[in-house]
Amino acid sequence: MRMVDIIAKKRDGHILSKEEIQWFVEGYTNDDIPDYQASAFAMALYFQGMTQEEAAALTFAMAASGDQLDLSKVEGVKVDKHSTGGVGDKTTLILGPLVASIGVPVAKMSGRGLGHTGGTIDKLESFQGLKTELSQQEFIRLVNENKIAVAGQSGNLTPADKKLYALRDVTATVDSIPLIASSVMSKKIAAGADAIVLDVKAGSGAFMDNVQDAKKLAEAMVRIGNSLDRKTMAIISNMDEPLGRYVGNALEVKEAVETLKGNGPKDLHELSVTLAAHMAVSAGKAANEKEAGRMLEKVIADGSAVQKMKQFVQSQGGDASAVDHPEMLQTAAVKQDVTADKAGYVQAIHAADIGKAAMMLGAGRTTKEDVIDHTAGIELHKKVGSHVEKNETIATLYTSNKETAAVEQMVQNAYTIGENSITAPTLIYDTIR
Amino acid sequence: MRMVDIIAKKRDGHILSKEEIQWFVEGYTNDDIPDYQASAFAMALYFQGMTQEEAAALTFAMAASGDQLDLSKVEGVKVDKHSTGGVGDKTTLILGPLVASIGVPVAKMSGRGLGHTGGTIDKLESFQGLKTELSQQEFIRLVNENKIAVAGQSGNLTPADKKLYALRDVTATVDSIPLIASSVMSKKIAAGADAIVLDVKAGSGAFMDNVQDAKKLAEAMVRIGNSLDRKTMAIISNMDEPLGRYVGNALEVKEAVETLKGNGPKDLHELSVTLAAHMAVSAGKAANEKEAGRMLEKVIADGSAVQKMKQFVQSQGGDASAVDHPEMLQTAAVKQDVTADKAGYVQAIHAADIGKAAMMLGAGRTTKEDVIDHTAGIELHKKVGSHVEKNETIATLYTSNKETAAVEQMVQNAYTIGENSITAPTLIYDTIR
Repeated sequence: MRMVDIIAKKRDGHILSKEEIQWFVEGYTNDDIPDYQASAFAMALYFQGMTQEEAAALTFAMAASGDQLDLSKVEGVKVDKHSTGGVGDKTTLILGPLVASIGVPVAKMSGRGLGHTGGTIDKLESFQGLKTELSQQEFIRLVNENKIAVAGQSGNLTPADKKLYALRDVTATVDSIPLIASSVMSKKIAAGADAIVLDVKAGSGAFMDNVQDAKKLAEAMVRIGNSLDRKTMAIISNMDEPLGRYVGNALEVKEAVETLKGNGPKDLHELSVTLAAHMAVSAGKAANEKEAGRMLEKVIADGSAVQKMKQFVQSQGGDASAVDHPEMLQTAAVKQDVTADKAGYVQAIHAADIGKAAMMLGAGRTTKEDVIDHTAGIELHKKVGSHVEKNETIATLYTSNKETAAVEQMVQNAYTIGENSITAPTLIYDTIR
Repeated sequence: MRMVDIIAKKRDGHILSKEEIQWFVEGYTNDDIPDYQASAFAMALYFQGMTQEEAAALTFAMAASGDQLDLSKVEGVKVDKHSTGGVGDKTTLILGPLVASIGVPVAKMSGRGLGHTGGTIDKLESFQGLKTELSQQEFIRLVNENKIAVAGQSGNLTPADKKLYALRDVTATVDSIPLIASSVMSKKIAAGADAIVLDVKAGSGAFMDNVQDAKKLAEAMVRIGNSLDRKTMAIISNMDEPLGRYVGNALEVKEAVETLKGNGPKDLHELSVTLAAHMAVSAGKAANEKEAGRMLEKVIADGSAVQKMKQFVQSQGGDASAVDHPEMLQTAAVKQDVTADKAGYVQAIHAADIGKAAMMLGAGRTTKEDVIDHTAGIELHKKVGSHVEKNETIATLYTSNKETAAVEQMVQNAYTIGENSITAPTLIYDTIR
């Protein structure tokens, strides 16, 4: 096989065989195929797309390109949840203890990542002493004992995806649904998932800014997962305004704890229970989402969900006192209120701008070397639909940096305030199976 | 500027500015822009095309990326001819002396190239002692004295085009009309042409296998040339069967000499006079093609055209006795006739297959390192429309290699012989100005 022929075949709109895709992924991983051929191929894929079979073959080959987590020694059906990312999305922190407390095993590999806040690992490190460097054996033992463990990504998982993603990022070939879908699914499969629940976000704070594109991506991922024998489903959820009331690392942990106690904001509570219910059904722990929902509301109400969080933090060496006293997680040196510049109803809160503001306060990273300020972030006192008076506090900034004027302005501008009252936005647009 | 943004802009079908194109060409030539971005860009260009202005900007930037030949000291309008390449195309050998003998200055830079035969330089080296390594001053002096000189490409002409072409070749991005047109035109402009006459071939032995695509390419090149103030025109000519009766290096020189003497085959004679007439008009040596045609037929008939060839060969150090005795150029060690396997009329001769056969006999190169056998090639005794008897000789192979059975078979198969008589094919399909 010659890569130039494979590029030409895709360029001309023909369907590639499993063998051709496999050969490309192996050759690219081994540096036998140069970046300049891979990038031309990615651009041809951008224009010509991929069939379901091609995308599944790409996913499978990328999953197989490096180490694959063997979770066969974990009892039960391993269900992994993936979110396409949004502002204030701390559902992973909530879902782990929540589903674990009804017996769904959570063996979660997580990352740090770049963005407006850190990744799940960064957030969890808001608990003093919590460690995520676990050996494979320790990880599996913890899951079997507690039904939950979270480990930092170790080993060489999906090197083909890492390499291809980095290349796509600098060659304007990121925005391809089959390529995005294959990238996400390859990581889930290499991480040992038996079943996958996807939360595909749509809106101003999401990768996909409209529901239609989000649905296309969700459908592509669901088809790939199911065709590779991983029971996969997706919901499409709203990411026009930030999820919940907090954006940041320690602040999001605080809100997660409150939500596990039943004191979370409505949108975050509802989304978490919905996703957890799908995970429970996928794991065979409930016959349907309704039954699962009842089980989940019960473990929140009776305190076993938050108890599971405590057990999880402690078993990974963390100081769990913040679970009992979540206010311990709200300790930034500088607090600065942002006020409304007029009276009215909040029509919209531009999620991406809130994300950028959080980043400027120190909550996120732009490069791997950046150090995260765990205490930094934003509290949103007012969400879409709320009424505000002129000069009323709409948000509070948390940071270590005393110069907040520019961020204040940014957050104020992220709010659209208008005269007419509006109903709260739809949270879950659709379910894709 | 960031290359990723330029790629995305083109990917999304927007029009690039002159400055963006210039910035890409400079950055790519200097190795500031990596191959993997250039190849993704080329693939985006493949799908989205370029406007006339974009293609002209690319051409201009590539022409300016290295040395540019300064022909201002050559008297008269410098008209360059370019052929997109075909089997048996020795028109450059004919046109030089032909137009020079009516006073059109020919300052030709030529190459060796890869393919079924060598380039013009290789062919000319069939004259013993002929040298094409000329200093710039020598080259200009010769053109001013004799109206003709041919030099091998020296200096660093269009490095951007060389680099980009090599990349396109391995990334399935060659087949893009604006990229092909810009590549050709950048070389012509860097080589100092005031006016350009293009011979765009269409047919089984050409890069473009149909007239429609050939016209599109011709139109793109003519528009680029004219928008960069080089008077440019093109003809679309037939390359279904090989041009003339000989394919090879020395063999093509022989046929060129015969044609300059007025003894050439009809198709080669007609095409040469047509192209020469366009060159003469472009150079202001004749009011129209008809007048130019008469002048050209006269210098062929009165011997001044062939005399010009002799002068040219001698002035570049070559032994011109082969101009008086062209049979000296037909000296291959092995001659092998190919016969017809049935009687009938020649319906078609597959040009590309004849080219491949010539290559196998030793006439061409596949890599720069290959050594050409100047004596190797093929003589076609029968062309399309000819009647043949079974076992009559249709072609003769010339080579240094005694094993010719496979090539004999190949040449026999390249001929389609059928019962019905057919008229000679159209030679010139169209003229684009």
